[in-house]
Amino acid sequence: MRPLIWERTRIYKIMTDQACIGIDIGGTNLRAGVVVGRQIAHLHHEPIGAWRDPSALAAHLARVIPLLPGADREISHIGIGLPGIVDVVSQKILRSPHYPEWIDVPFGKIFYDALRLPVHLDNDANMILRGEHLFGAARGLRHAVMATLGTGIGGALLIDGKIFHGNTGFAGEIGHMVIDRDGPACDCGGRGCWELYASRQAFTQPPHEVTDPRQWAQFGKNLGIGIASLVNVLGMEDVIIGGGLSQAWDRFEGAMRAEILRRTYPETAARIRVHRAQLGDIAGILGAAVFSEGHHG
Amino acid sequence: MRPLIWERTRIYKIMTDQACIGIDIGGTNLRAGVVVGRQIAHLHHEPIGAWRDPSALAAHLARVIPLLPGADREISHIGIGLPGIVDVVSQKILRSPHYPEWIDVPFGKIFYDALRLPVHLDNDANMILRGEHLFGAARGLRHAVMATLGTGIGGALLIDGKIFHGNTGFAGEIGHMVIDRDGPACDCGGRGCWELYASRQAFTQPPHEVTDPRQWAQFGKNLGIGIASLVNVLGMEDVIIGGGLSQAWDRFEGAMRAEILRRTYPETAARIRVHRAQLGDIAGILGAAVFSEGHHG
Repeated sequence: MRPLIWERTRIYKIMTDQACIGIDIGGTNLRAGVVVGRQIAHLHHEPIGAWRDPSALAAHLARVIPLLPGADREISHIGIGLPGIVDVVSQKILRSPHYPEWIDVPFGKIFYDALRLPVHLDNDANMILRGEHLFGAARGLRHAVMATLGTGIGGALLIDGKIFHGNTGFAGEIGHMVIDRDGPACDCGGRGCWELYASRQAFTQPPHEVTDPRQWAQFGKNLGIGIASLVNVLGMEDVIIGGGLSQAWDRFEGAMRAEILRRTYPETAARIRVHRAQLGDIAGILGAAVFSEGHHG
Repeated sequence: MRPLIWERTRIYKIMTDQACIGIDIGGTNLRAGVVVGRQIAHLHHEPIGAWRDPSALAAHLARVIPLLPGADREISHIGIGLPGIVDVVSQKILRSPHYPEWIDVPFGKIFYDALRLPVHLDNDANMILRGEHLFGAARGLRHAVMATLGTGIGGALLIDGKIFHGNTGFAGEIGHMVIDRDGPACDCGGRGCWELYASRQAFTQPPHEVTDPRQWAQFGKNLGIGIASLVNVLGMEDVIIGGGLSQAWDRFEGAMRAEILRRTYPETAARIRVHRAQLGDIAGILGAAVFSEGHHG
């Protein structure tokens, strides 16, 4: 539990005094917690390995949720972030790069049937940006783009204070911008996608074992190339960098910022603010639990 | 004058019966016309060469406008599209790739002082997409991204039915997405920007002299790479392709579509619709004249 959240409680209007549950299902981990006000009562954390099948995952959640500290309160709703393309209208997951067997899966119905509480699904990166917007690095911003650096690069867009989904939830697949048209093949079918150069895929060894500053400088440079492209397309001044690899911030920050300046007009460059995400693991849970802000697109 | 516009008049509600003036200032040409209802009374067209200085340009417009057919009517306002980054709040042009001496120029005030009519400025590509949204290929769409293929690649974003400007008008600089991180230098200071590969800059000779199908296939492929990136970032299903080079549509369409399919997930690919712009030269004038829809960002 982070005191950060509790201390900031008073500066936000409380939308609900009821408890709600936020669940962040990632490529490797499942995180969950009961959220009351802006505080997570307890952060539950486990590897997701065994629960890939949608029904098995739902049944597992139905067992775990009643055991979460705080779950004895009245629960108003459950928000769930999933790693993939979520159609927020039909509440289906259309595709997940991490779980190739998840094609057109009606997770909204599956979870509701198992949990018997109002359920709201969205892409995991959208939930994380929602959390950072409510309580973290994106507080008070009108427009922002977020990149989460992990196994790949997740992305989310904040437009006019709301998560932008595009036509059917595809918005924010920023890891598949092409930055090297003749580069190596990507799982998406393309070549030279950004996430090959600025996520864990950039390294042959685990990132914490990468100590050569030149490797991190190259990483930062490639990260900056994609950020410059995003800023040019979206005209947004605020970029939030999160995900596990953002822990290596000090190793890549300088090279990243230099490359952004190199790749943008001076008038643009002077206005860009790149922020490190503030909430770490709990952003996705908070964003999922407090989804009442609405969305468009 | 295109009968297209007249025929479609009745299916749109008339926002004003007053005449208004739309002006499209491009990198090489100045186009202007008096717009009544949805009809352009006459398309004025001249090379812009001599009028690069902001005050001289304003003085020239003050001479030309009263001579336009239809200008004897009561004129309610003038909309002007300019090639560069326009701050729509301050009505300044911050930078223009075509006119390097235009840095932080208060065109809104300069034009108003010369013309003595309400003036509204925006980026030329934004005006073109506004025109296509009102009367052309983007009619009825909620979200769309437009690329205008000319000397460079201009861009504009339609979000929730309105032009999206980003924080200060930078949105839509899509020509400077990097598609080849180690590619040749671009005027923006970067390398390997999309417009080097999918605008007139892709060819050493004038495009109408390019007859080798392999050159057009390469052009279409590079165009498709950038479109796939845009679709992945924005999650928009509709892409409008305009600008002078879109006249070569039949030469590059096949290669463009094949590359988009190759570079996107099947679920995404199945939803993408790439449209050829419908209004040609007059889109920017119509969009500039009928700017009453508002905007955000």
